[in-house]
Amino acid sequence: MRGPLRVPVARVEAGSSILDEDASRYVARVHRKRLGDRVVLFDPDRAIEADAEITAIDRASVAVVVEAPRAATFLPARRVTLLQATCKSDKFDAIVRDATELGASRVVPINAERSVGRPADGRAARWRRIAVEAARQCGRGDAPAISSPMELVEAVQLFASGEGVNGFCLDPAADAPLGPALRRLGPEVELAFVVGPEGGLSPAEIEACTSAGLARVSFGPLTLRAETVCAAVLGAVVLLSR
Amino acid sequence: MRGPLRVPVARVEAGSSILDEDASRYVARVHRKRLGDRVVLFDPDRAIEADAEITAIDRASVAVVVEAPRAATFLPARRVTLLQATCKSDKFDAIVRDATELGASRVVPINAERSVGRPADGRAARWRRIAVEAARQCGRGDAPAISSPMELVEAVQLFASGEGVNGFCLDPAADAPLGPALRRLGPEVELAFVVGPEGGLSPAEIEACTSAGLARVSFGPLTLRAETVCAAVLGAVVLLSR
Repeated sequence: MRGPLRVPVARVEAGSSILDEDASRYVARVHRKRLGDRVVLFDPDRAIEADAEITAIDRASVAVVVEAPRAATFLPARRVTLLQATCKSDKFDAIVRDATELGASRVVPINAERSVGRPADGRAARWRRIAVEAARQCGRGDAPAISSPMELVEAVQLFASGEGVNGFCLDPAADAPLGPALRRLGPEVELAFVVGPEGGLSPAEIEACTSAGLARVSFGPLTLRAETVCAAVLGAVVLLSR
Repeated sequence: MRGPLRVPVARVEAGSSILDEDASRYVARVHRKRLGDRVVLFDPDRAIEADAEITAIDRASVAVVVEAPRAATFLPARRVTLLQATCKSDKFDAIVRDATELGASRVVPINAERSVGRPADGRAARWRRIAVEAARQCGRGDAPAISSPMELVEAVQLFASGEGVNGFCLDPAADAPLGPALRRLGPEVELAFVVGPEGGLSPAEIEACTSAGLARVSFGPLTLRAETVCAAVLGAVVLLSR
């Protein structure tokens, strides 16, 4: 994904417009673009993008002429929800980045019993900004929706056990391996994965998952760090979906 | 992988012995073990392990009685070599950790044209220590071999194109997707992956890979960070191997 600088914006519309303060600063000061340079504006909420040309620029403000908007070029091939136990802040940030690059449509932070640290209020907005920036960098035309942290039981009911969703609860002690279960599903089936904290999901949490109809599966016999599980599982989903 | 503390050692032999300085410090001071506690000694070079009991302990030295050694309980299911372009030190450390948890048998650091920063001499020894510690934590009974950084052409010839090895060169611009290519191979075939730096492999490097018989494949249309590629690809290999 090389090519023109991608700039996330709140709205993509054909015609002349002035980028908002953040986007202007980003184009003018971070990337030192100049008059006449071309950029791609993208709206990650609506998965729309458009080519644009810079028609005026100073350090605080950038004016562009925007061509006809189009549907985003690169979108994930299938819907995947990651229900991820919260953990230390920098680790969860890394997980959001990985999940964005690897096509998650939604990330639901879960306050698990054994989670270390509770995210501060307003964390979801920060994670969304991280996701949008990761989408920008990797060329993805949308960004995962990110919920506020919630309890596992509620999250599983809302996002991992609806009609047509195949939910999996990852537990190193499970007998059934994830690989064959995943390979049996078609490449377009909607998926959801519950990934616990370093200390694992508690028996009550695993029970809540299986009661809601999720399959309890093991990635393998080793104890992976939570951030490794996320990238490994979502990476496998990408390769099984194309 | 919960259970007794795992301690990497240079040699596992039944009978009484005194742990070396590093292992003693690790058991006595980092993990504050006590007289009578049980540990598992493992030799990642030979993939051998044994239960042991602490029979004497002070801050500097730990004596153990070691039971009969056995083959390591958890070893990767197939041989996989990761030929990874060098990058900033903390990133490569993270890649070594991921590759260990996800079962790589060998990591070959490559000085690619667009690599940022050259690793200092002696870096391979440091990476090996990181790999052994990651193996300890995740419960793996061996650890990946880690070469000194080498040139791509040499690395590909030595490690990615021998008889019986299926080598892949990852290039976002390739038409062929990795997923189907990987799924066509049996679950026990030996694999090798060349992963370039952030700026990608150069045309000459891609040509060197394809000339050596590697398949040029794309993980997908997005530009992933190198560390994400490693975890995503190796994660998929794990799930396709079980």
